[in-house]
Amino acid sequence: MDMDVEYLWLGLAIALLAIAFAVYIAVIMVSSTMGDRDSKKGRRTRWIANQIHDGSMMFLRKEYEVLVGFVGIMMAVLVYLEVIGINGEHIEKYTWLAFGFGAFLSALAGNIGMRIATAANGRTAYAVRFSRDRGLKIAFQSGAVMGLCVVGLGLAGLVIVYMALGDERLDRLEVLYGFGFGASSIALFARVGGGIYTKSADVGADLVGKVEAGIPEDDPRNPAVIADNVGDNVGDVAGMGADLFESYVDSIIAAMALGLSATVAVTAGGRTGTVAGLEQIEALTVPIIIASAGIIASILGILFTLSIPRPGNPRWALTGGTVFAAIMMVIFSYTALYLYVGEDGYNTFAALVTGLAAGVCIGFSTDYFTSDHQLPAKSIAKAATTGSGTVLISGMAVGMISVIVPVLVVCIAIMAAHFFADLYGIAIAALGMLSTLGVTLATDTYGPVADNAAGIAEMANLGHKARKRAEDLDAIGNTTAAVGKGFAIGSAALAALALFSAYTEVANLDGINIVKPEVITGLLIGALLPFVFSALTMNSVGRAAMAMVQEVRRQFREIKGLMTGRAQPDTKRCVAIATSAAIREMILPSVLVIAVPIAVGIWNAEALGGLLAGSLVTGFLLAVFMANAGGAWDNAKKYIEAGHHGGKGSAAHKAAVVGDTVGDPFKDTSGPSLNILIKLMAIVSLVFVPLFAF
Amino acid sequence: MDMDVEYLWLGLAIALLAIAFAVYIAVIMVSSTMGDRDSKKGRRTRWIANQIHDGSMMFLRKEYEVLVGFVGIMMAVLVYLEVIGINGEHIEKYTWLAFGFGAFLSALAGNIGMRIATAANGRTAYAVRFSRDRGLKIAFQSGAVMGLCVVGLGLAGLVIVYMALGDERLDRLEVLYGFGFGASSIALFARVGGGIYTKSADVGADLVGKVEAGIPEDDPRNPAVIADNVGDNVGDVAGMGADLFESYVDSIIAAMALGLSATVAVTAGGRTGTVAGLEQIEALTVPIIIASAGIIASILGILFTLSIPRPGNPRWALTGGTVFAAIMMVIFSYTALYLYVGEDGYNTFAALVTGLAAGVCIGFSTDYFTSDHQLPAKSIAKAATTGSGTVLISGMAVGMISVIVPVLVVCIAIMAAHFFADLYGIAIAALGMLSTLGVTLATDTYGPVADNAAGIAEMANLGHKARKRAEDLDAIGNTTAAVGKGFAIGSAALAALALFSAYTEVANLDGINIVKPEVITGLLIGALLPFVFSALTMNSVGRAAMAMVQEVRRQFREIKGLMTGRAQPDTKRCVAIATSAAIREMILPSVLVIAVPIAVGIWNAEALGGLLAGSLVTGFLLAVFMANAGGAWDNAKKYIEAGHHGGKGSAAHKAAVVGDTVGDPFKDTSGPSLNILIKLMAIVSLVFVPLFAF
Repeated sequence: MDMDVEYLWLGLAIALLAIAFAVYIAVIMVSSTMGDRDSKKGRRTRWIANQIHDGSMMFLRKEYEVLVGFVGIMMAVLVYLEVIGINGEHIEKYTWLAFGFGAFLSALAGNIGMRIATAANGRTAYAVRFSRDRGLKIAFQSGAVMGLCVVGLGLAGLVIVYMALGDERLDRLEVLYGFGFGASSIALFARVGGGIYTKSADVGADLVGKVEAGIPEDDPRNPAVIADNVGDNVGDVAGMGADLFESYVDSIIAAMALGLSATVAVTAGGRTGTVAGLEQIEALTVPIIIASAGIIASILGILFTLSIPRPGNPRWALTGGTVFAAIMMVIFSYTALYLYVGEDGYNTFAALVTGLAAGVCIGFSTDYFTSDHQLPAKSIAKAATTGSGTVLISGMAVGMISVIVPVLVVCIAIMAAHFFADLYGIAIAALGMLSTLGVTLATDTYGPVADNAAGIAEMANLGHKARKRAEDLDAIGNTTAAVGKGFAIGSAALAALALFSAYTEVANLDGINIVKPEVITGLLIGALLPFVFSALTMNSVGRAAMAMVQEVRRQFREIKGLMTGRAQPDTKRCVAIATSAAIREMILPSVLVIAVPIAVGIWNAEALGGLLAGSLVTGFLLAVFMANAGGAWDNAKKYIEAGHHGGKGSAAHKAAVVGDTVGDPFKDTSGPSLNILIKLMAIVSLVFVPLFAF
Repeated sequence: MDMDVEYLWLGLAIALLAIAFAVYIAVIMVSSTMGDRDSKKGRRTRWIANQIHDGSMMFLRKEYEVLVGFVGIMMAVLVYLEVIGINGEHIEKYTWLAFGFGAFLSALAGNIGMRIATAANGRTAYAVRFSRDRGLKIAFQSGAVMGLCVVGLGLAGLVIVYMALGDERLDRLEVLYGFGFGASSIALFARVGGGIYTKSADVGADLVGKVEAGIPEDDPRNPAVIADNVGDNVGDVAGMGADLFESYVDSIIAAMALGLSATVAVTAGGRTGTVAGLEQIEALTVPIIIASAGIIASILGILFTLSIPRPGNPRWALTGGTVFAAIMMVIFSYTALYLYVGEDGYNTFAALVTGLAAGVCIGFSTDYFTSDHQLPAKSIAKAATTGSGTVLISGMAVGMISVIVPVLVVCIAIMAAHFFADLYGIAIAALGMLSTLGVTLATDTYGPVADNAAGIAEMANLGHKARKRAEDLDAIGNTTAAVGKGFAIGSAALAALALFSAYTEVANLDGINIVKPEVITGLLIGALLPFVFSALTMNSVGRAAMAMVQEVRRQFREIKGLMTGRAQPDTKRCVAIATSAAIREMILPSVLVIAVPIAVGIWNAEALGGLLAGSLVTGFLLAVFMANAGGAWDNAKKYIEAGHHGGKGSAAHKAAVVGDTVGDPFKDTSGPSLNILIKLMAIVSLVFVPLFAF
C-alpha cells in the first residue's frame, strides 16, 4: 500500500514550492514603492491605500468573528456525530479536525490574498505614474501571490490530511470530505458576504455620489468611495479566491473518491479492479500528480507573463501566460502520467485535456457575450436608445441565450470524459480545467487590483497620465474578470457534478431514478434553491445599499464643507455599515444551503441525489445567465460611454446605467454565490452520508 | 372488452351537452345589444367593436395559413412514418388522422372563443352604460362559452377517437397521443404567436402614444390602439384557451396511458392487474368519467355565477362560481366513482382531490405575490422611490421567491397522488386540477373582455360613468387573470409530469438514472431549452415592438390632422404589422421545441427522459418566476397610480412603468409559452417513441 508515498511527498514538496515562490514574489512586490513620503502625492497615495487596507482588514476581522463561531459549532456537531452518532450511525473519525483544517487553510489563503491585493493597490497606482508596464507588473504580481497560495495551500492541505491517515487512508477517505466541507463553508461566507458588501458599497456610492450629488466616480469627497474600493478586494479577490480554492480542492477530492469507489468493490473480492486502466492506488494518486504538474505549469506561466516584453500589448502578456501554462500542462501531465503508469494513463490524460479544452471554450464564450467589442453588448447599447425598459429586456435575452455554449460545452465534456474514464473521468476533467489555476487566478485577481489603482490614481490626484494608464489596465482587467467568472462557473459545475457522482457511489445508490416521485420532488426542490438563494442575496444587496445611501446622504447633509473639500468624509462609518450588513445578511442563505440537503438526505437518500442534480442544473444555468447578463449590461454602458449613441450623459446612457445597476448584484453577488451553492450542497451530502438510512 | 362503451357514450353525451349549453349562452349573449344604430354612441361602439373583430379575424386567418401548412407537413411526416417508417419501426396507424383532428378541434375552440370574445367586447362596453352588473354578465357569458367549448370539444374529440379505435382501442392507444400532439401544436402557435402579437402592439401603443405623443391610454387617435385591443383577444383569449385545451386533453391522455401501462404487463400474463385498485378497463374509463363529472360541475358553477345576485360584490360572484363548481366536483366525482367501481375508487378519488386542492393553493399564492393589496407588490412600489434599478431588482427577487409555494405544492401533490395511486395518481391529480376548467376558464376569459370593454368605453366616448364601471370590471379581471395564469402553470407542470411518466412507461425504460452521463446531458439540455426559448420570444417582442413604434411614429408624422382628431389613423396597417411579425417570429421557437426532443430521442431514449425532466423543472420555475414578477410589477405600478409614493406622473411612477415594460413580455409572452413547451415536448416524445431504438 505504500507505493504511493513517494508521490505524496513529491506533491507536498511541489505545493510548498508554490508557497515559497509566492513568498518570493510577494517580497519583490512589497519592495516597490507606494510613493515618496516627502511628496504630497506620495503621502496622499499612502493615506488612501491605508484606508482601503484598514477597511479590508476590518471586514475580515468581523467575518472571522462569525466564521470562528460557525466553524466551532460545526466542529462540535461533527464531534457529536463521530462520538455519539444518530441511530447508531457515526461519521468517520477526525472528520471534525479535517473540517477545521480545511476551513483554516481557505481562510488563510483569502487573508493572504487580501493583504497582498491591498498592498498592491497603492503601489500599482503609484507605479503607473512612471509607466503602464510597471503598474501591470505589480498588479499581476499580487495576483500571482494569490493564485499560488490557493493552489499551494489547497494541495498541501489535502496531501497532509491524506498522509496523516497513514495506512488506513483508503479505508478512511471520508475524512478528506471533511477537509472539502471546511473549505466550502469558508467559500460560502466569503462569496455571499463579499458579494453583498461589494455591491451595497458600489450602489451606495454611485446612487448618492454620481446621481444625487453630481460628483464624479472615485471622488474623494464621497464618503462611500473607500468602502467601494474595499468591496473590490472583499468581493473580487477574497470571494473569487475562496470560490476557486473550493473548486480546486473539491475536484481533487471527487476524483480520489471516484477512483476509490470504482475499484473498491472488485478489490474487496480479492481481484484487482481498475478504473480507466488504473489500479486502485494509482487512481487515488493520479489526481495529486496532476495537481502537482499543474502547479509547475502555473509557475512557468507566471514567469512567462512577468518576463516577456509587455509594453506593446499588455492584454497579450496576460493571455500569453495562461496559454503558455496550458500548453506546458499538456506536456507535463502527459509525461508525468506516462512515467507513473505508462500507457495505462492515456485515458486519464484524454479526460484531463477534455477539461482543459472545455475551460478555454467557456472562457471564449463569456468573452464574446460580455465584451463591448461584440454584438451582444452592442445590441443592448442600441436598445438603450429606446429607454431602460428595452435595455433590460434585451440584456435579459442576451443572458439567457448566452447559456447555450457553456451548457453544450459541459455536456460534451461530460460525455467525452466519461467515454475515456467513466465517472472518474468527469472528476479528472474538472481537475483538468482547474489544473492551471495558479496562473488563471493570478489573471483574475489582477483585475480588481488594477481597478482600485485607477480609483486611487484619481483620488490621490496623481495626474491625467497616470489615471489614463491605470484605466487602460482596468479595461483589460474587466475582460479577464468576465472570463474568470465564466471559468469559475464552468469549473464549479464540473466539480459539483463529480461530487454528485461521488455521492451516489459513496451512498451505494444503484442509480437515481427520476421517475420516482421522491426523486422528482428532490429534483424540484433542488432546482428551487438557486432561485430562492438568488432572491435572498438580491434582497440583501437592496437592503444594505439602502442603509448605505442613507448614511451617505446624512454625511453630505450634516458634515459642513464636505462638498467644497474643506472637510473629510467619515469613510470608516461607511465601511462599518457595509461590513455589518454583509455579515448579517450572509447568515440565512448559508444556513439554508447546509440544512436543506441534510434534511432531505435524512428523509430519502435518493431524493437527495435528485436535489443535487436539480440544484446543479438550475444553479449552473442561473449563474451563467446572471454573470453574462450583468457583464453585457456593464459593457453596453461602457460602449455608450466611449461615445456611441450620444455618449456619456445622453438619454441612452441613463438607460444603460439602469441596466448596469440591475446587472451589478446579478454578476457580483447572486450569480457567483450560486457556484458555491452547488458545490457546497454536494460536499455536505458526502460528509453526512453515513447518517442517511438506505 | 365492451364494459366501458356505455360510459364512453355517456361521456360523449355530456361533452355535447357542454357544447349545446355553450351555444345556448352564446345565443343569449349575442342577443344583447351593442348599441343603438340610431345613436351616435351606438354607431361609434359598433364601429370600434367591428374594427377589433376584423383585426382579430385577420390574425386568425394569417395564423391559419401557417397552421394549415404546418399541420399538412406534419401529417405527411406522420403518414410517412406510418407507411414507410424508419429502420423498420413504424408509428401507429391513423396517428396522422388523430393529429389532424386534434389540431382542428383546438383551432376550432380558439376560433369560437375569439369570435365570442370580440362579439362581447362592444356589448359589454355598451351594457355598462346602464349598470355594472349587465356588463359583468355579458363578459362572463362570453367566457363561459369559451370555457364550455374547450372542455366540450376536448372531451368529445378524445372520446370519438377512442371509440373509433373499436375493439382494438387498448392495443392502439398510441393514436390518442397523436390527438394530443395536434392540440399541442396549435397551442404552441397560439401562445407564442399570440404572446408576441399582444405585447408588440401594447408596447408600440404605449411607447409612442403615452410617452412620445402624450395622449392617454386607449385614445382613438393612436393608430396602434386597435391592435392593442386585438392583442388582448389574441393573447389572453385564444392563447390561454389553447393552452388549457392542451393541458386538459393531455392530462386525460396521460391518465389513460398510465392506466394502461400499469396493468398491461400483468394482464398479458393472463392475470388481472390493477392500478390503485382499478382493473385495466376501469383505469382507462375513469379519466373520462372524471372529466364528465367536471363538465357537469362547471355548468352548475357557471349557472351559479349567472344567477346569484351580483351587484354587491362582483368579485365574489366570480370566485363563488369557481368554488361552488369545485365543491360540486368533489361530490359528483365521489358519487360517479362509487357507482362505477365501488370502494375500489377511493384511492383515485383521493388523488383527484389532491389535484383540486393543489390548484387552489397555487391560485392563492399567485394572488398573494401579484396583488396590489399585498406586501410583495407594495415593496416593489416602495423600491420605485429610489429609481427603476431598484424596481427591477426587487421585482426580480419577488418573482424568484414566489416560486417556493407552487413548487412545494406540486411536490406535495406528487407525493400524495403517488401515495394514493402510483404514477396513475399523478395524472389523475392533473386532471383533478383541470376538471372544473369549464368555469375557471370562463373566469379567466372574462378578464380580457372586461379590459377591452373599458377601452371601447373610452374610445366611443360612452361617458365617465360607463368608463368607471368598465374599469371596475377590468380591475377584477386583473386578479382573475393572474390567478388563472398561476393555475395554467401549475396544471401544465402536473400534466407534463404525467406525460413524462407515461413516456417512461411507454418507452419501456426501467427508470431514468441521472447518474448516467447521457441522462445528465439530457437533463442539462432540457433545462437549457426554456432559457433559450424565453430569450427568443423576448427578442421577438422587442423586434416586433420596434416595427410597431416606427409605424405609429410614421402615422403621427405623415397623417395630417391626426392629433387634432380631424383625420383617422390607419389602424389596419398596425394590425397587419403586429400580425405578420407575430406569425414570422413564432416559427423558430416552435421548430426548436418539436425538433430537439426527436433528435435527442433518436440518440438515446433515456437521455430524452432526462431532457423532459430538465425542461419540466426549469420551464416550470421560469414560468412561475416570469408570470409573478410580471404581475407584481404591473400591480406595483397600479398601486402607485392609486396615489401612493407620489401617484401618477411622479418619479416613482416613471420607475414603476419601466418595471411594467419589462414585466409585460415576462408575464404575457415568454412565461405562458413555457407552459406549452414542457407539455409539447413530452407529447412529441410519446408520439415518436416507436422510432427511438432501445
